Amino acid sequence: MTHINGIAASSGIAIAKAYQLVTPDLSFEKKTIDNPSVEIERLNQALETSKSELERIKEHTKNSLGDEHAEIFSAHLLILNDPEMINPMKDKIKENNVMAETALEEVTTMFIEMFQNMDNEYMRERAADIKDVTKRVMAHLLGVTFPDPALINEEVIVIAQDLTPSDTAQLNRQYVKGFATDIGGRTSHSAIMARSLEIPAVVGTKNVTTSVNQSDMVIIDGIEGKVIIQPSEEELTSYREKQNSFRKQQEEWAKLKDEPTFSKEGEQVELVANIGTPNDIDGVLNNGGEGVGLYRTEFLYMGKSELPSEEEQFEAYKTVLERMDGKPVVVRTLDVGGDKELSYLNLPKEMNPFLGFRAIRFCLENEAVFRPQLRALLRASAYGNLKIMFPMIATLEEFRQAKSILLDEKKSLKADDVKVSEDIEVGIMVEIPSTAVTAKQFAKEVDFFSIGTNDLIQYTMAADRMNERVSYLYQPYHPAILNLVNNVIQAAHKEGKWTGMCGEMAGDPIAIPILLGLGLDEFSMSATSILPARTQIKNLSKKDISKHKEQILSMRTADEVVEFIREITE
Amino acid sequence: MTHINGIAASSGIAIAKAYQLVTPDLSFEKKTIDNPSVEIERLNQALETSKSELERIKEHTKNSLGDEHAEIFSAHLLILNDPEMINPMKDKIKENNVMAETALEEVTTMFIEMFQNMDNEYMRERAADIKDVTKRVMAHLLGVTFPDPALINEEVIVIAQDLTPSDTAQLNRQYVKGFATDIGGRTSHSAIMARSLEIPAVVGTKNVTTSVNQSDMVIIDGIEGKVIIQPSEEELTSYREKQNSFRKQQEEWAKLKDEPTFSKEGEQVELVANIGTPNDIDGVLNNGGEGVGLYRTEFLYMGKSELPSEEEQFEAYKTVLERMDGKPVVVRTLDVGGDKELSYLNLPKEMNPFLGFRAIRFCLENEAVFRPQLRALLRASAYGNLKIMFPMIATLEEFRQAKSILLDEKKSLKADDVKVSEDIEVGIMVEIPSTAVTAKQFAKEVDFFSIGTNDLIQYTMAADRMNERVSYLYQPYHPAILNLVNNVIQAAHKEGKWTGMCGEMAGDPIAIPILLGLGLDEFSMSATSILPARTQIKNLSKKDISKHKEQILSMRTADEVVEFIREITE
Repeated sequence: MTHINGIAASSGIAIAKAYQLVTPDLSFEKKTIDNPSVEIERLNQALETSKSELERIKEHTKNSLGDEHAEIFSAHLLILNDPEMINPMKDKIKENNVMAETALEEVTTMFIEMFQNMDNEYMRERAADIKDVTKRVMAHLLGVTFPDPALINEEVIVIAQDLTPSDTAQLNRQYVKGFATDIGGRTSHSAIMARSLEIPAVVGTKNVTTSVNQSDMVIIDGIEGKVIIQPSEEELTSYREKQNSFRKQQEEWAKLKDEPTFSKEGEQVELVANIGTPNDIDGVLNNGGEGVGLYRTEFLYMGKSELPSEEEQFEAYKTVLERMDGKPVVVRTLDVGGDKELSYLNLPKEMNPFLGFRAIRFCLENEAVFRPQLRALLRASAYGNLKIMFPMIATLEEFRQAKSILLDEKKSLKADDVKVSEDIEVGIMVEIPSTAVTAKQFAKEVDFFSIGTNDLIQYTMAADRMNERVSYLYQPYHPAILNLVNNVIQAAHKEGKWTGMCGEMAGDPIAIPILLGLGLDEFSMSATSILPARTQIKNLSKKDISKHKEQILSMRTADEVVEFIREITE
Repeated sequence: MTHINGIAASSGIAIAKAYQLVTPDLSFEKKTIDNPSVEIERLNQALETSKSELERIKEHTKNSLGDEHAEIFSAHLLILNDPEMINPMKDKIKENNVMAETALEEVTTMFIEMFQNMDNEYMRERAADIKDVTKRVMAHLLGVTFPDPALINEEVIVIAQDLTPSDTAQLNRQYVKGFATDIGGRTSHSAIMARSLEIPAVVGTKNVTTSVNQSDMVIIDGIEGKVIIQPSEEELTSYREKQNSFRKQQEEWAKLKDEPTFSKEGEQVELVANIGTPNDIDGVLNNGGEGVGLYRTEFLYMGKSELPSEEEQFEAYKTVLERMDGKPVVVRTLDVGGDKELSYLNLPKEMNPFLGFRAIRFCLENEAVFRPQLRALLRASAYGNLKIMFPMIATLEEFRQAKSILLDEKKSLKADDVKVSEDIEVGIMVEIPSTAVTAKQFAKEVDFFSIGTNDLIQYTMAADRMNERVSYLYQPYHPAILNLVNNVIQAAHKEGKWTGMCGEMAGDPIAIPILLGLGLDEFSMSATSILPARTQIKNLSKKDISKHKEQILSMRTADEVVEFIREITE
């Protein structure tokens, strides 16, 4: 038996046999060939087989995970249907008398290198796609089996170096009970997928693939971030108990599904969810979300070759509002730029994209992009309880300008007799330090605040949280962050406005007591965190914690804060 | 007569004939050649002539502007002496029967493109160097004259698209009375050079080169940012008056050179200078600096192929301390990374370098770089009034760790009987929002604060000030910035500590009244701003301004602040 530590990426305990998801050996010996037409035919067949496989996987993914996840396979199919990619392979075979394998390898390598060297996240993703799809075609050329996780038909724990988007898209929840990977962090693609599939997962173990053999019995402890290989009988028993108590806890949580959220002494707060697409609404409702605190609209704009139409947006917003049935839905207007690039917008390459031309900055200068979104939102407002918020607001002038464009569109819609709600609250994300510092001034003009801690922390600490060298400075409990959060909440309350939080911090069990004590009104988090949070808050006294407020805000380090919170809440 | 508006880059009025600094036509017709050895000889000669010119310019620059500015020509000489650059040219001539011009162009273009496409500021600068030096060699090959501003021997205003480092390095202050360029901003290389040479300059005019003819009479108004071409007699008279009154004002300022700085009611503040090298001390003393508020030590590390030795650093620090003769000298420890890359340190390429692994973050993980600097500083402390400050401090843990390394080195020096001052104050730069927000906590542990507004503003507003698309958000008078500055000053005073400011804001005539009112103790600025600032402060009442403090801090926009300050100080 071996214990391996990693990063707890998705909660729960899974116990099953290991399924090693490994890429087969795709090396080959280069030979010159006599008959180019035979090689071209071999290539054509490998391409056709790959395409029909990809069509199947795409369909499967669409049904199990939704359109958005299936998009990746459309990209793969595009590559295999691209004459600029395929014709050079055939030319190479004819002109240089090389095998199909050589032609495939040389042409794709050229494109991969070209895209990888572009300093553009989007193009680098294209390089990853070409790599992924090349492996599949090569496997067919070489006649070796390419692993298809979709074919797994018994209960397993998937063990892999990393999971590619196409791997995770194929995981069948019925059989895949958990997974563990060598690389990745809590916010890597595979970790996010695991949480959305609600499969226990441990990532970033460094060496799980070399430590596990096919069919070894494996325990995944997604609570503590541990992988136990070939556990003893004792361990099996103890983990089965842990698994049961986790399930019982989940059942306890489930009881609070349709309950409002109260602290010990009966102070009410609102627990709402972050979503990316209308498909996420099921998760919100199943997990007892009292609304949507952050609807990220970027997904509507991604994986496309052009802007979504006003109509397309209207349909998406209307669906979400209708399905939420009068519960509040806070929609964030387009937050593009930074780490979210859209090829068709031709955004300039920037030296520091996180400090660059993004979100509201981009929208205010590109009204042709901004206005259709606002019109779609205004039209959808008739179908539910819509609140609109603008991202990356740094100055009051920006808010005033954005709001005046919104009012302008509202006027024009009403002039055309289109029904628009008269009760739309208009607020802002507080994710830039200047806005948190001057919340008092903003509170006089906005209807609400929603604190975006992911960005607020990275700007306040001047540390890119994606950069491993400085990620230690991404400190949600740093007294500076807590003071800014407090400042925003106090400023809002003084003007009779409310404050929400939609960064990861809002669902964090250490942060929740502090935020409750500071008086946060609305906590927006991953749907799966809502019930645990509701249970936690039920057992916390807001009054007791707020007694320590000044003490906490005067602490000198994040460690001091964490230690103190552990003490007073245990 | 024509008026052109641009950016006021360096104060003062200059009136003289235009000198168009233009690159000659370097195009040529490609021919194949019969005798490669003749071409190689031509190339050799052009290289040799260029090298001896560069040696002369380098020497000239060293004498007129100092070692640091001469370094650029060492880089140029290195290129012309690099066999990896030169041999491929000769090979091309021999193998492809091409002219020396073609060989020069093709090889340098290849290197330029290679370096330009690297996503690395340092490498892109190398590309600019190669471009610069290629033009010189090409001119010699073609037998055309390459403009040598060093040869100007009458009073002129230089007109250019932009000034390259080698152009500006050659400007002779005796003859060059001012300059105007098409491109560039207040912080571009040519603007900084103009201020350090004290030559009036207007940059970023967009079209001055096409509007001026050689020998046109030109007025440069470096106060308002205007260029007047072929002025009328009336204008000439009026600008001569303006020039005289500016000179008189300079004389007025000069009278305050050896005076301390008092507000109207006699409240004292300290006006000190930002410096980069020991050579800058003359400027500090000539301009009445009461000390050095920021000694940027990066220049010691730049334009080199390896780290400076402890000894080399000790000599530089000792020189500065001795020459300042007991006046305070605040030295900032190495602030590398971000926009300041050092090739020999092999810093990782980052997606957002301004939010990355830089300054104290780098030093704490690279004690082999950090400790020699601290030792050099400690040894130098025996020769003057040294204060040490750490850059980019975001958490108290970082300060504690840096200080403990400093104390450790102090102990070890004292054990070796090396003399070290016992009165070194140890402080921090406040340039990260977290630190400004929690200044109360920091004030209990540091000896002083120095607010670095350039970075503090860019992080607080989440806007890269080098990025033109968002530079409108670089707002020194934004109420958020003023609230943070106020918070730092109050926190320091409560613990009996002092607060300085060493960003550009400290020398800004609009900011000075606000900062005085908020109680800033020390203003550190470009040496040439000190006397105007002293004159301004003499006429300001600290008490009157501070009466409006709460009102200013509660304002909603930067524009409101500026308007109000103009009102109360006029």
